[in-house]
Amino acid sequence: MNIECPLPAETEETIRLGHGSGGALSQHLFQNYIYPHIKNPWLDQMHDAAVLPVSGARLVFTTDSFVVSPLFFPGGNIGELAVFGTVNDLAMSGARPLYLSCSLILEEGFPLNTLATIMASMGRAAAQSGVQLVTGDTKVVERGKGDGLYINTAGVGVLEREWQIGPASIRAGDRILLSGDIGRHGMAVMASREGLAFETELQSDCAPLHAPVRDLLQAGIRVHCLRDLTRGGLATALVELSQTSSTSFVIEESAVPVSEPVEGACELLGLDPLYVANEGRFAVFVAPEQEQPALEILRRHTVSAASRTIGQVCTSGRPEVILRNLLGCERLLDLLPGEQLPRIC
Amino acid sequence: MNIECPLPAETEETIRLGHGSGGALSQHLFQNYIYPHIKNPWLDQMHDAAVLPVSGARLVFTTDSFVVSPLFFPGGNIGELAVFGTVNDLAMSGARPLYLSCSLILEEGFPLNTLATIMASMGRAAAQSGVQLVTGDTKVVERGKGDGLYINTAGVGVLEREWQIGPASIRAGDRILLSGDIGRHGMAVMASREGLAFETELQSDCAPLHAPVRDLLQAGIRVHCLRDLTRGGLATALVELSQTSSTSFVIEESAVPVSEPVEGACELLGLDPLYVANEGRFAVFVAPEQEQPALEILRRHTVSAASRTIGQVCTSGRPEVILRNLLGCERLLDLLPGEQLPRIC
Repeated sequence: MNIECPLPAETEETIRLGHGSGGALSQHLFQNYIYPHIKNPWLDQMHDAAVLPVSGARLVFTTDSFVVSPLFFPGGNIGELAVFGTVNDLAMSGARPLYLSCSLILEEGFPLNTLATIMASMGRAAAQSGVQLVTGDTKVVERGKGDGLYINTAGVGVLEREWQIGPASIRAGDRILLSGDIGRHGMAVMASREGLAFETELQSDCAPLHAPVRDLLQAGIRVHCLRDLTRGGLATALVELSQTSSTSFVIEESAVPVSEPVEGACELLGLDPLYVANEGRFAVFVAPEQEQPALEILRRHTVSAASRTIGQVCTSGRPEVILRNLLGCERLLDLLPGEQLPRIC
Repeated sequence: MNIECPLPAETEETIRLGHGSGGALSQHLFQNYIYPHIKNPWLDQMHDAAVLPVSGARLVFTTDSFVVSPLFFPGGNIGELAVFGTVNDLAMSGARPLYLSCSLILEEGFPLNTLATIMASMGRAAAQSGVQLVTGDTKVVERGKGDGLYINTAGVGVLEREWQIGPASIRAGDRILLSGDIGRHGMAVMASREGLAFETELQSDCAPLHAPVRDLLQAGIRVHCLRDLTRGGLATALVELSQTSSTSFVIEESAVPVSEPVEGACELLGLDPLYVANEGRFAVFVAPEQEQPALEILRRHTVSAASRTIGQVCTSGRPEVILRNLLGCERLLDLLPGEQLPRIC
């Protein structure tokens, strides 16, 4: 008797949480399912925001949707995150942030007073960042088809310097500066989500970064590249920049500050702070002769008071990020294959 | 014995589906819970898009989130809707649409091939509308916290004429033109959602409107106001414009075309086609002497081939919209109090 075993039905590839983590799966999703259908020269810039010619001006345009859970976390809420996140994407292009849009997806049953609290936070965050929320939209979905509130903001700014600030301007020898200790935002959200005991010690670093960037540029610092360290943290940002700029970076592990509560929470949850999201930290790439003046300017701002140099760009052609510890041992940083922390922003 | 009856706990006001309908509840939500916290002169324009000064140019900026259910409906899908919706909001300001952003909120388990199909539709819709998708974002939420896919697009365009196209420019005597028959999009979505038998006859009118608007302006037609007839349909658009411009409109009911399948579906579901959403229809306000030239230009485009005059703006100071039938009987149109069709766009 000839018994044939039926082949298993081909399982269709579907979205996994890791597709939203900002790591290798996110890159795969974009490269294979999104980019091929909408490609154009602006998307090829591969930066957080697009630089566009409009009537003689150079406009910067960016967008982010925010799905953070919970909506309120130590140090902020989804409203502030939605404003600062987009303001920071504009600032990281070297642009002066001007106008934001605000689009809400509300779930049936969401308390109106909570919405008002979040909108008030958005208003204050916009004022603090020197931008205005000029246009918007509100949609409502049935109970069980959302999670309270999702917010999208898009942002428009202008570029007032003539040189290009972005991965393509990174040069061998550049110093890599970091604006402060890492991992606060991700761990604050995780701690409040998991109800961890050290929740009170952990505060998100959620803050606008336009002011230190403005002062760097006004002082004539010829910044090569700026990048905020959001989803995927410092490590993911560096790996992406290394790939896009086809340069290699060497980072001194001991130079990267991690606070005690973040260190503790990471150990408890088995996470690497290098991959944990920040919402008020950024990296700055400058030529060696501008390292000290840049640090001095950054340190004048509360948000970047603890700025320091963490590494440099090497001549090696191979795009890789080398993390060197105090003993001189080196390891390569890579994109995380899948999910580290879902819904962190 | 003194028995005190406890007062019932005050029930907190929460989001209802009607808050997303574009009617009176949507207005109440915006006026009371959103606007007070973020108010600024640009929001006061109360139009679909904000007109902003940027480096000497007049930029137009708008956003919409799309939560249509189902994602595919006769005549289109959420991807086309997300492109055309934002292109049309820009066009309705008289702007030339230039760049769009695209932000996805994906639910865990969503098929990647379906995403690719929708992105391909977005790419084609963008090409058809003469815009480029230049920046974007992707977020993933857990199963049961979304509904497959929500898309936000924001759009940027430039205003190339010096006069203001918007509610404030509406004048007594203006003719009100309508670009075609109404109610197709809303009924196509409803029919496919409910599995109605006449589904095949109903096709969404989903289309870009930039071309007829461009031709009107290039021909020197001094358009006073433009408005696409999306959520809440023709009636809601007219009532809002009447309120914002503090003028009254008289509309001839018999002049408003409704196709047979839309009429039939509306009767079956107990809906008024005047309040049903369109995604490819718009109203044009022009001075009487420009009525005929405007109609001629509109009729050259497939999307507005059936354009006709449906009414005019009166001198009466009271903002109201009067619908007059063939017998001369008049009724006032008002905003719907709550929900007509949820998740239509």
